[in-house]
Amino acid sequence: MNSLYLSGEFIDTSNYLSVTNPFTNQEIQKISVADANIVEQAINNAYESFNETKQLSGYEKSIILKAIAEKIQTQNSELSELISLESGKPIKYAKAEVQRAVQTFLIASEECKRILYEYYSLSGNPDGKNKEALVKRFPIGVVLAITPFNFPLNLVAHKVAPAIAAGCPIILKPASATPLTALALAKIIQETTFPKKAFSVLPCKSSIIEQFLAHQKISKISFTGSPIVGWKIKQLAYNKKITLELGGNAATIITDSVNIDNIITHCVIGGFAYSGQVCIHTQRFYIHHSVFDEFVKKFITATQKLQYGNPINDTTDISVMIDEENAKRVETWVQEAIQNGAEYLLKGKRINNHHEPVILTNTNTSMKVNGEEIFGPVVCVEKYNGDIKHAVALVNDTNYGLQCGVFTNKIDELNYCFENIQTGGVIHNGCSIVRLDEMPYGGIKDSGYGKEGVKYAIMEMTESKLLVKQNKNNGTIF
Amino acid sequence: MNSLYLSGEFIDTSNYLSVTNPFTNQEIQKISVADANIVEQAINNAYESFNETKQLSGYEKSIILKAIAEKIQTQNSELSELISLESGKPIKYAKAEVQRAVQTFLIASEECKRILYEYYSLSGNPDGKNKEALVKRFPIGVVLAITPFNFPLNLVAHKVAPAIAAGCPIILKPASATPLTALALAKIIQETTFPKKAFSVLPCKSSIIEQFLAHQKISKISFTGSPIVGWKIKQLAYNKKITLELGGNAATIITDSVNIDNIITHCVIGGFAYSGQVCIHTQRFYIHHSVFDEFVKKFITATQKLQYGNPINDTTDISVMIDEENAKRVETWVQEAIQNGAEYLLKGKRINNHHEPVILTNTNTSMKVNGEEIFGPVVCVEKYNGDIKHAVALVNDTNYGLQCGVFTNKIDELNYCFENIQTGGVIHNGCSIVRLDEMPYGGIKDSGYGKEGVKYAIMEMTESKLLVKQNKNNGTIF
Amino acid sequence: MNSLYLSGEFIDTSNYLSVTNPFTNQEIQKISVADANIVEQAINNAYESFNETKQLSGYEKSIILKAIAEKIQTQNSELSELISLESGKPIKYAKAEVQRAVQTFLIASEECKRILYEYYSLSGNPDGKNKEALVKRFPIGVVLAITPFNFPLNLVAHKVAPAIAAGCPIILKPASATPLTALALAKIIQETTFPKKAFSVLPCKSSIIEQFLAHQKISKISFTGSPIVGWKIKQLAYNKKITLELGGNAATIITDSVNIDNIITHCVIGGFAYSGQVCIHTQRFYIHHSVFDEFVKKFITATQKLQYGNPINDTTDISVMIDEENAKRVETWVQEAIQNGAEYLLKGKRINNHHEPVILTNTNTSMKVNGEEIFGPVVCVEKYNGDIKHAVALVNDTNYGLQCGVFTNKIDELNYCFENIQTGGVIHNGCSIVRLDEMPYGGIKDSGYGKEGVKYAIMEMTESKLLVKQNKNNGTIF
Amino acid sequence: MNSLYLSGEFIDTSNYLSVTNPFTNQEIQKISVADANIVEQAINNAYESFNETKQLSGYEKSIILKAIAEKIQTQNSELSELISLESGKPIKYAKAEVQRAVQTFLIASEECKRILYEYYSLSGNPDGKNKEALVKRFPIGVVLAITPFNFPLNLVAHKVAPAIAAGCPIILKPASATPLTALALAKIIQETTFPKKAFSVLPCKSSIIEQFLAHQKISKISFTGSPIVGWKIKQLAYNKKITLELGGNAATIITDSVNIDNIITHCVIGGFAYSGQVCIHTQRFYIHHSVFDEFVKKFITATQKLQYGNPINDTTDISVMIDEENAKRVETWVQEAIQNGAEYLLKGKRINNHHEPVILTNTNTSMKVNGEEIFGPVVCVEKYNGDIKHAVALVNDTNYGLQCGVFTNKIDELNYCFENIQTGGVIHNGCSIVRLDEMPYGGIKDSGYGKEGVKYAIMEMTESKLLVKQNKNNGTIF
Repeated sequence: MNSLYLSGEFIDTSNYLSVTNPFTNQEIQKISVADANIVEQAINNAYESFNETKQLSGYEKSIILKAIAEKIQTQNSELSELISLESGKPIKYAKAEVQRAVQTFLIASEECKRILYEYYSLSGNPDGKNKEALVKRFPIGVVLAITPFNFPLNLVAHKVAPAIAAGCPIILKPASATPLTALALAKIIQETTFPKKAFSVLPCKSSIIEQFLAHQKISKISFTGSPIVGWKIKQLAYNKKITLELGGNAATIITDSVNIDNIITHCVIGGFAYSGQVCIHTQRFYIHHSVFDEFVKKFITATQKLQYGNPINDTTDISVMIDEENAKRVETWVQEAIQNGAEYLLKGKRINNHHEPVILTNTNTSMKVNGEEIFGPVVCVEKYNGDIKHAVALVNDTNYGLQCGVFTNKIDELNYCFENIQTGGVIHNGCSIVRLDEMPYGGIKDSGYGKEGVKYAIMEMTESKLLVKQNKNNGTIF
Repeated sequence: MNSLYLSGEFIDTSNYLSVTNPFTNQEIQKISVADANIVEQAINNAYESFNETKQLSGYEKSIILKAIAEKIQTQNSELSELISLESGKPIKYAKAEVQRAVQTFLIASEECKRILYEYYSLSGNPDGKNKEALVKRFPIGVVLAITPFNFPLNLVAHKVAPAIAAGCPIILKPASATPLTALALAKIIQETTFPKKAFSVLPCKSSIIEQFLAHQKISKISFTGSPIVGWKIKQLAYNKKITLELGGNAATIITDSVNIDNIITHCVIGGFAYSGQVCIHTQRFYIHHSVFDEFVKKFITATQKLQYGNPINDTTDISVMIDEENAKRVETWVQEAIQNGAEYLLKGKRINNHHEPVILTNTNTSMKVNGEEIFGPVVCVEKYNGDIKHAVALVNDTNYGLQCGVFTNKIDELNYCFENIQTGGVIHNGCSIVRLDEMPYGGIKDSGYGKEGVKYAIMEMTESKLLVKQNKNNGTIF
Repeated sequence: MNSLYLSGEFIDTSNYLSVTNPFTNQEIQKISVADANIVEQAINNAYESFNETKQLSGYEKSIILKAIAEKIQTQNSELSELISLESGKPIKYAKAEVQRAVQTFLIASEECKRILYEYYSLSGNPDGKNKEALVKRFPIGVVLAITPFNFPLNLVAHKVAPAIAAGCPIILKPASATPLTALALAKIIQETTFPKKAFSVLPCKSSIIEQFLAHQKISKISFTGSPIVGWKIKQLAYNKKITLELGGNAATIITDSVNIDNIITHCVIGGFAYSGQVCIHTQRFYIHHSVFDEFVKKFITATQKLQYGNPINDTTDISVMIDEENAKRVETWVQEAIQNGAEYLLKGKRINNHHEPVILTNTNTSMKVNGEEIFGPVVCVEKYNGDIKHAVALVNDTNYGLQCGVFTNKIDELNYCFENIQTGGVIHNGCSIVRLDEMPYGGIKDSGYGKEGVKYAIMEMTESKLLVKQNKNNGTIF
Repeated sequence: MNSLYLSGEFIDTSNYLSVTNPFTNQEIQKISVADANIVEQAINNAYESFNETKQLSGYEKSIILKAIAEKIQTQNSELSELISLESGKPIKYAKAEVQRAVQTFLIASEECKRILYEYYSLSGNPDGKNKEALVKRFPIGVVLAITPFNFPLNLVAHKVAPAIAAGCPIILKPASATPLTALALAKIIQETTFPKKAFSVLPCKSSIIEQFLAHQKISKISFTGSPIVGWKIKQLAYNKKITLELGGNAATIITDSVNIDNIITHCVIGGFAYSGQVCIHTQRFYIHHSVFDEFVKKFITATQKLQYGNPINDTTDISVMIDEENAKRVETWVQEAIQNGAEYLLKGKRINNHHEPVILTNTNTSMKVNGEEIFGPVVCVEKYNGDIKHAVALVNDTNYGLQCGVFTNKIDELNYCFENIQTGGVIHNGCSIVRLDEMPYGGIKDSGYGKEGVKYAIMEMTESKLLVKQNKNNGTIF
């Protein structure tokens, strides 16, 4: 089957894109591509179906979302393999992603029954005697979701699950590199009672979807991807509700009140999982001078043990990047850094679209490896002088602000970090890479706008309406 | 004194604008106008002062805000007169505005101590054992506020009070027609301990302020004014947090389960207060056919009793509009409507910048008097066929969506209205004009983006940051 | 198997109680009865296991509770039959009870992950600069649950599910008439990972359990049953947390803005479901004089159609009462009422433990059929004079206050009812009998103390602890 | 004036109690004592006035409470002196108490406008489509408040302020030793618009008030005082809502991550303020062995500097106890402890009703100075072995559980303390004595039942009522 998913049906078009396995460079499948007509149809159908989706009760939505979660669980192996095949993600991470997607839909199946309303007396106002306010949330309308290649299932889930929970139709444009998992999800959703016209998965060129950003039947755009594209979308769709989940150069602070042995494994994952192609992988470690040498030595050793191989193998820790273009970019950035004074602690070379892990030091924010989003297997480790303020200043010296990790057992240090680190989230005793699917998630500065995390995404896919209720009826009601 | 207020000081510039009394057409005062240099200074100072304002404790902010409320109360008469003089607002409405501003600052003095944080266990997640989430709100940074002429005090208060409560510096550009009240408020704030550099009131041309909309030291823009300007600001400042409070053509539904005598006085206020120069004045009444004749007759009679005169007189119910240009626009729109089939129920003529109340029927959404924001003393009264769905369809037949009033004693009617009326707020047993200062307030569709109302404005002037806390420390923390 | 369930094991004792089918009067099974030693053991084990249950993560508890819900669903038929057999409840109501119990455990599986904490700044206090408050809830300890015969599964679920969700061990004393379903639930829970020592089901004499009410290892008693026993328990266990769900003589108001045909079926269920052996069945209908005759006529007709028979048959609407003693009590109360001026609208006689439906009028609060809890198939229908205040006064003229139904389409009537009816809950457009398992449920006046409903019961099985956190650490921390 | 305050009027009775200055032993004033008739009148009047108090709007209550706060501020000096005179409290602490009472009423003036309601969809339930739940709180009825001598103003405020905020009438029985401040407060409240019959201050014998504990017109009893009396009240008034704020033997932990110099002054206040006659004064310090000697040395030195004198003098740090009986009790308990192995670190003797500060070590829980509430100027300082678990075990080795202080900069220590200390509250980087008036406050174990702190007390003086609202009206409403 080479179909896209239009309003409940898998259909074929005459144009295709080729989905390849980044490790073997072989085509996995051809997939139909949507043209403007198809996108327009999807939008019109979605808009029409809003009359149905907004009427779904909490129970009905919960049943749909639970069914999706269960089917994902049932198809766990197939989905993990599909993710691994099209994205080059090591299968063990792909499996974890599938489990997270199960959670994402389960959380949504619970949150859809708990959408928060406010109700309070207005009688505290001199003019409010016997008046009460109800602030209720209503689904916002059609959601357009645009998702990246690096989590072909769970970053799709973070848009689709809250949209269903909110009662909104969704049109999904998956990453061109990884549309297969999204289409597999479409198959799952097709089998539920979610209104057919309310969901489409439309692989297509960016230029096509761009034409529809300002479409008046679309009420909300949720985008995960690069800052440049994200902010441009916001500009084009200036009068819509927008959520942007963009990139960053996330950092993790390691203070001296931590047992280094306990954290090394986690830090290697934090830095190199999926070759660093994770928005919140730790690109920069700032380490207390007194534990710097110990950390670096053990970190290098552990990194060297990462097993390279075909992502589909259970033993593979690290594999290829999504494509050669990106691998070359990483190579170039590293070379630029070295030329500008950075030093290798662990040298890694590029072979086609594979880039070996690199650990650098003596980097600074003017080098792209430190100041821009590397989205590759490169980690900078830098010393800070012992005062937590120094570490935080280094963390903040960037235009990005997604997440930050802090390892410490000192209350004053953690307080200082939380108060002063300029990111959307601070992870205590974990690397920046930690994300649980119910957390509010989203960057500040150039890293994004708005929040995901199921409950928070539902908020952004609903809008509030106020009812001022007259609680007593008599001759002098005004 | 002809000064503007720059970062804690009243200073004079070489350029002035003339503030005139719309009733007498006499100049009240000349006021210094800010140029780009001054705006730049104000922004730099505000940005610098953010280090102080963000450290203010709830208690400290509460003391400042309470002091402002008390001083406004003390200067009640002077401020009411100033509002009336520069805006042409009948003094009784000006007095009411001052009382509301007192409330707005009082509410802020209480809300600043109650900014909502979330704290919950993450242990419901398979990976969340011993993890907890704290979601805390932090002030967003410098706020740029742009306010209209029609509530020279309270619409300023709705931006300044929450900004202080949130811990944000504010730069205010007041309406050019009515900067005096804003400057009087500056005098009051100057006497408090709010950091001096954190507040400026800068009368200036729109073209000047436009240059600064994308200034990187500004984090938030809060605008109240026309839709055209509002949406343009959002486009220019696409990567900032924005609140837009724009206009509308608000409607009120009158069903048959209401005692008409009890509501007439309120409805006349709802339609004609301050010559309809109120964003949420009722421009359109939709009336159940069985009470249409009774309502219209009594409504006309009551409207005819409105006393015209100098706004400064206690007995004046209705006076001039803000300027002749607007009065002419109203005149033209009414004439166009009549030419297209509308009928006068009460005819009113224009004399310079005064326009007498007009009541029309047989209007429809294609006429500007009905479909556009009239912002003048013109009210359309139309029959609906008895089914509440008809009334709601009429209400919704517009691009705007600010507020709507519904008079009914029937539960099913009120439910249907609340579920289906496309506005930010629905007022039960009141006209669309009802606003209490703690209410969430803000339109949907073309009428705005985001919410005001003290607590809600504070939310929009703060941003959330997440801390994932590790609740137990042991060898297996991950 | 004739075993009771002690701390994870089914064991036999030498003393038995006989559980009989109320319809056939045949013994279903003999069940081992706990003596004081066994109760003491159960308490000690439960107390010990608290160290485990309080450590369970939200996820772990959620898995346990979901497993229970699923097993109940799987055993749906067997459990429905068991309920019907031991309680004489018509099978269709028994099936509905099982479905509700599924919901009760499912809700608990979701709520256990969302136990509410508070976190707020204390800086609004002059002495609170840099201080913050965390108010977290902790499980309270061992819960003793005592349950009645009328919902052998779901009223057990309403104590067991929140206890597991809260992290508390539970000892359950089921009604002596209906212990079999509770033991079937024990079997289900035994198969989960809930700590074995943390749950016991101990059929025993009331006199035995009474000895343990003040036991210091018990932290919380949750009782559903008669007012006399309930209040006595509260007195004996005066220093423990107590929830009492007691009886009442619930009323339903029928105003004139309602289509009588639409509500008759529901009202017959509201009055006569399970022969009125439901705490919130409608014992008293107060009906607007203008619709009284219509309602009464249709209500009688519909009641007469109720099919009497063996509860195990699908076609049976109404069957025997729990025992002859209760049937005789009903008979006597009806006769007393008739002697004191009440009139039959529908006469019903007693045959052994079966009592036919009775509809009376001209009753008043001094008659037991009206003023006391009848817990039988007797309904009083009375006229009110048209003013809703009259209806509410009649509703309130009792010592009880559990729930009340109100059928109306008028806003002022519903407002008046909700403000003035003295009950724990008011059901709009439904009879008093409506209960959804997430609702807060519990009476006031003599009808109870505290609330059930999963989320609310969890609150009553946890206690709050405050942490005042110092947010900054420096030389002048005090 | 020697009057008591009955339902809005100061009246004299024929029986008096003599209020004496504990320092001079001179009578300050004779005060009329209420007999059973007067108490009955007060209750009847209060009950009647409930119809008024429950109708007060948030705004009206806020105005009343703010007026009280302002009058207390205005009478600051007189009230401080009165407190000092009748209670023997050093004037500097009396002044602080008055400032806290101002806050308590101010907080109530704000909280009365924010009483929390819940509103949520029930559509997550299979039977809940189109149903919504409103859970609103209503004032509970007449409150009987019984207060102790040690905070004659602020512990009265903590019952009166929330009662007014909740909309409840209150009858106050002040401590017989210190009724004058309560009566001064009555004078202040008399001048507001709070309904006259809704407030009484009735000095009387405990035996009199005891007769009314079960009075059916009283809905709520709020008691602060000794455990023995408290639990007896709960038994007698078993079917009422009860809040008990009882005593304790509060502890404070001092770990090794703290600068001892910074905390000594605060610790001396924590131990000896008002001669330890404060429920949460630190009676037991548990100190890390490595800093024990340093702490003890500096603590003794600082304690020795406490200035003894007439409480009315600004320079007095410590003065007499409330009466000789209590001073003798303290003397006896110390002697018993010494006889059982305790050692003096600072010896203090008793002179009449003055007891000098005593610092003991080598105490244990079997000694009354350690295991019972001393309510006098005696502090035990004990070493713990360095493991925070040891410190917590020592803290928990008691029947009481009010508050506990913990000085630490280690996250794992603070976590362990908060999770495991068995008290109502844990104070980070402060002694157990810290109380801000918005905090939830209240002990567990023998130390109390329920919570005070304005918002929490309002919760306990209101009760929730549920409305299940039918959101759609059609033929199939059930």
